[in-house]
Amino acid sequence: MTIHAVNIKALVVKESSILLSLTVYNNSSGGGLLSYSESQSESITGPPASNTNSDVPAKKKVVVLGTGWGGTSFLKDLDASLYDVQVVSPCNYFAFTPLLPSVTCGTVEARSIVEPVRNMVKKRKGDIKFWEAECLKIDHANKTVLCRSNIGNNLVGSGEFSLEYDYLVVAIGAQVNTFNTPGVKEHCHFLKEVEDAQKIRRAVIDCFEKAVLPSLSDEERRTNLHFVVVGGGPTGVEFAAELHDHFQEDLVNLYPSVKDFVKITVIQSGDHILNTFDERISLFAEEKFGRDGIKVQTGCRVLSVDDKNITMKAKSTGEICSVPHGLVIWSTGIATRPVVRDFMEQIGQGKRHVLATNEWLRVKGCESVYAIGDCSSIDQQKIMDDISAIFEAADKDKSGTLTVAELKDVIDDIIVRYPQFELYLKSKHILDLSTLWKDSEGNYREEIDIEGFKMALSHMDSQMKSLPATAQVASQQGEYLARCFNRMHQCEEHPEGPRRFKGSGRHTFLPFRYKHFGQFAPLGGEQAAAELPGDWVAMGHSTQWLWYSVYASKQVSWRTRMLVISDWTRRFIFGRDSSRI
Amino acid sequence: MTIHAVNIKALVVKESSILLSLTVYNNSSGGGLLSYSESQSESITGPPASNTNSDVPAKKKVVVLGTGWGGTSFLKDLDASLYDVQVVSPCNYFAFTPLLPSVTCGTVEARSIVEPVRNMVKKRKGDIKFWEAECLKIDHANKTVLCRSNIGNNLVGSGEFSLEYDYLVVAIGAQVNTFNTPGVKEHCHFLKEVEDAQKIRRAVIDCFEKAVLPSLSDEERRTNLHFVVVGGGPTGVEFAAELHDHFQEDLVNLYPSVKDFVKITVIQSGDHILNTFDERISLFAEEKFGRDGIKVQTGCRVLSVDDKNITMKAKSTGEICSVPHGLVIWSTGIATRPVVRDFMEQIGQGKRHVLATNEWLRVKGCESVYAIGDCSSIDQQKIMDDISAIFEAADKDKSGTLTVAELKDVIDDIIVRYPQFELYLKSKHILDLSTLWKDSEGNYREEIDIEGFKMALSHMDSQMKSLPATAQVASQQGEYLARCFNRMHQCEEHPEGPRRFKGSGRHTFLPFRYKHFGQFAPLGGEQAAAELPGDWVAMGHSTQWLWYSVYASKQVSWRTRMLVISDWTRRFIFGRDSSRI
Repeated sequence: MTIHAVNIKALVVKESSILLSLTVYNNSSGGGLLSYSESQSESITGPPASNTNSDVPAKKKVVVLGTGWGGTSFLKDLDASLYDVQVVSPCNYFAFTPLLPSVTCGTVEARSIVEPVRNMVKKRKGDIKFWEAECLKIDHANKTVLCRSNIGNNLVGSGEFSLEYDYLVVAIGAQVNTFNTPGVKEHCHFLKEVEDAQKIRRAVIDCFEKAVLPSLSDEERRTNLHFVVVGGGPTGVEFAAELHDHFQEDLVNLYPSVKDFVKITVIQSGDHILNTFDERISLFAEEKFGRDGIKVQTGCRVLSVDDKNITMKAKSTGEICSVPHGLVIWSTGIATRPVVRDFMEQIGQGKRHVLATNEWLRVKGCESVYAIGDCSSIDQQKIMDDISAIFEAADKDKSGTLTVAELKDVIDDIIVRYPQFELYLKSKHILDLSTLWKDSEGNYREEIDIEGFKMALSHMDSQMKSLPATAQVASQQGEYLARCFNRMHQCEEHPEGPRRFKGSGRHTFLPFRYKHFGQFAPLGGEQAAAELPGDWVAMGHSTQWLWYSVYASKQVSWRTRMLVISDWTRRFIFGRDSSRI
Repeated sequence: MTIHAVNIKALVVKESSILLSLTVYNNSSGGGLLSYSESQSESITGPPASNTNSDVPAKKKVVVLGTGWGGTSFLKDLDASLYDVQVVSPCNYFAFTPLLPSVTCGTVEARSIVEPVRNMVKKRKGDIKFWEAECLKIDHANKTVLCRSNIGNNLVGSGEFSLEYDYLVVAIGAQVNTFNTPGVKEHCHFLKEVEDAQKIRRAVIDCFEKAVLPSLSDEERRTNLHFVVVGGGPTGVEFAAELHDHFQEDLVNLYPSVKDFVKITVIQSGDHILNTFDERISLFAEEKFGRDGIKVQTGCRVLSVDDKNITMKAKSTGEICSVPHGLVIWSTGIATRPVVRDFMEQIGQGKRHVLATNEWLRVKGCESVYAIGDCSSIDQQKIMDDISAIFEAADKDKSGTLTVAELKDVIDDIIVRYPQFELYLKSKHILDLSTLWKDSEGNYREEIDIEGFKMALSHMDSQMKSLPATAQVASQQGEYLARCFNRMHQCEEHPEGPRRFKGSGRHTFLPFRYKHFGQFAPLGGEQAAAELPGDWVAMGHSTQWLWYSVYASKQVSWRTRMLVISDWTRRFIFGRDSSRI
């Protein structure tokens, strides 16, 4: 993902000249809006009507990068008529990723879990423009993104173009993390994209077709039918369970001669699979896998993978062993995409792992760039960083000390601005704020000074947790951001956010707040484990689809629902399809 | 498709030693049956029980190459318990090819038109073995086929193996004929396999996604959206019609900005498209295409294709022109596969275009090899070649002359053996055989001698027509051959065929007779043209599916029917899917 130096140079020159010519003409629109559009693109997008009419303020340009959970959820809720919206993504569809493991085995078809972006765009009657291209570079200084389409190399015309933005929404997701393990990129399958799932489906059938050939030894059959899953998270576990079901329900009948050679191994570096779940669920899953004959190898780190073997090291003993395999699925973690990494360096976040935003999902250090989903992480403001300002704001009578009543006056704003405050109270089962005023001997005090206040609140920041990189988070962030964009004008006049402890007035919007609906892991054979909010753990018969419908009700169109249900009906009647296409 | 010399050598040595050791032991089974099986393969196939027990005659080994229309139809009807059946095909599915043009546009899904071979095999409870591999060489002298699996290059074990046969059924189909036109292989899409259709579907969406990008000129958009179909046969015409429908019904709404740039051109070397159909149908199709804006360019030969342009020559004027394109579909004709060509050279058919069989579908010059479908053509015995024998057989009283009554005694056998006889009578509207006895002045004669007989029958061979390379023919041939195999024993004892004019006794089986159910061409917009037996021409509303169900009732499983209907329902409700997967 290196960028052609000459092109960028050309771009900069081109734009600065346009900047000059438009400076006066656009000075009323505010926010540095530029009506620049390449002459070639005008023919299809047409010059925005608002720009040619100086009476009406021009619509601000919103560029959205990515059509995954975050981007799609943002687009679905955005009132696109308020902005000039352009979407860039190398995929022209949204994929309902929780069903990817099902696609690997043909339980549902790839096409049933995707929603074409063009269908969404069509409903907006031209208010959203979509370009199937990859974002090569975010040029923050010039407020442009450089994009390149990789489609149809035989087709004419340059696929390279740049888009200017007033607001940029980075929802570009993350890439697979190989932890630089040698051979992973070349010899492992991943499970992030729809294409990955389709490839795995074909590869599994290949393993069986190869294994039954008359020219193979039993040892070779055994190797080809050894399926290894690296990573015991929900995706890896669900894939292993799906594969086991697929084998038991279909493949054993289609390839009876090799049924005794099949083996599935899940390799997990931690001590348990599903370690983000409640321990009871981990154990339940491990027991279920044990009964099913799926081998779970915990405490193992993969050292390298080649086309024939996977080499790993047992953490406890330091023992290194190499196991022959037919197929390896790598499902461990995520890493930052190069284009995001480059952007992070531009804005001084080069040392971080992931793009940091504030609680309103705005990228730190950038006025006009927002980031949602796996490519970003919210940097929650610490109470201790603002402690003096909070004290000062709460100390209405400027006495230099704070009463419980004074704190209560600002408590709502504190709780909204610093959610860790409420989490702390809950975790300590504190119902009455005056408990905080107790001294070290446990005596209630009337008032406390700044030092006492710092002491009382000192442990609260420990409650801050970063959000997991899940579809649920991305989806809620997209929704939240769209709501902000829709009410930008209104909220700028009547701010709805908490009071600013540093500075005056209120924040324009309420900060983003994640609502956890729990997590869910299908374990095969109609069994599933679910962890619901309030420590509710459910194990047993699967209600997978109902579950997905609840937590992703927005993204799952009726189309997708019906397609998936019809796939299940097909499977129920005819079994899974073993054709290698 | 070259064969590794060392491997073949090893194979020959191995087999001749086995031949020696088994000669005595198998002398009762007849037909040169060999119980050879590679030691490695025994572990999965197990040694055939019949071979280890000398009381029961060993089952004869039938090897079937290909799982297209011919091979599948043969397998569906074969009583597999009578033989030791092995099937070799690089595809592990049967594809209902008449719906391929629909797959290119997503009207039906690829998976809906395929039937996994393993499903068919499963129903036979182990009587049929299937190997997903390509046949590299038919070694007629040793009665073996050498096969290689190309799947999963990362998987262990040699994919090369050989199979011995007592009977070989070659149903390997044909390949695309590029007529050695430069650039066709590299730059054109074909429409023979399911993968081809899937690629075209993606490529069409690519053309549109590329064309809408902001960086393109109108001229570039126009080029990328120029779809060229080379070949005006049923497949090419149907693809053009499907694409036009797809565009009108879906793409125009999804890519409204480029709707005026789309162009579809059909290039046909002959004077009319659909030239195997009735002329009325050709004209109807051309008019329909004219109304739809599909350009039909007849009398044009393509000289070359590159990634940007297609160059052609108008036959009448000799003018050469080069047209830029976004996508070219090459759908012209078929050519013999290299493995069939090699086999033809082994058996002295090197100078022919296609494998010749007799009327019983047995390859000429090979006792034990049968060929069906596109890879073969029936060499109908000429009446004139056998005229003396026919005369002699009919001349019961050995008078040297033939009466009409004498001819009538053998007429049924003649009609069965030489179908051109009946065709001739029909074409000349001859109801009474004595018409044949007329002399050159038109006078009826009582008897005729051999010269008169030759004269009377001399034009009949002109009625011989080779069968078209269609699914209908292949399917009927497979069905016919399976029936022969099923009754081999019974018919050897009680021959059902016509009398042998040369030699004595009767032919074991009735010869293959093709029953033409007509042909059908969907023309888009629910319009279709059908040509039914008896010169019945129907044009208008499509009853595509009913049609397919009639003529292909055997191959179309209930599964396929339901899947296709459910696809149509999906499309009816949600439109076609434009996701690029």
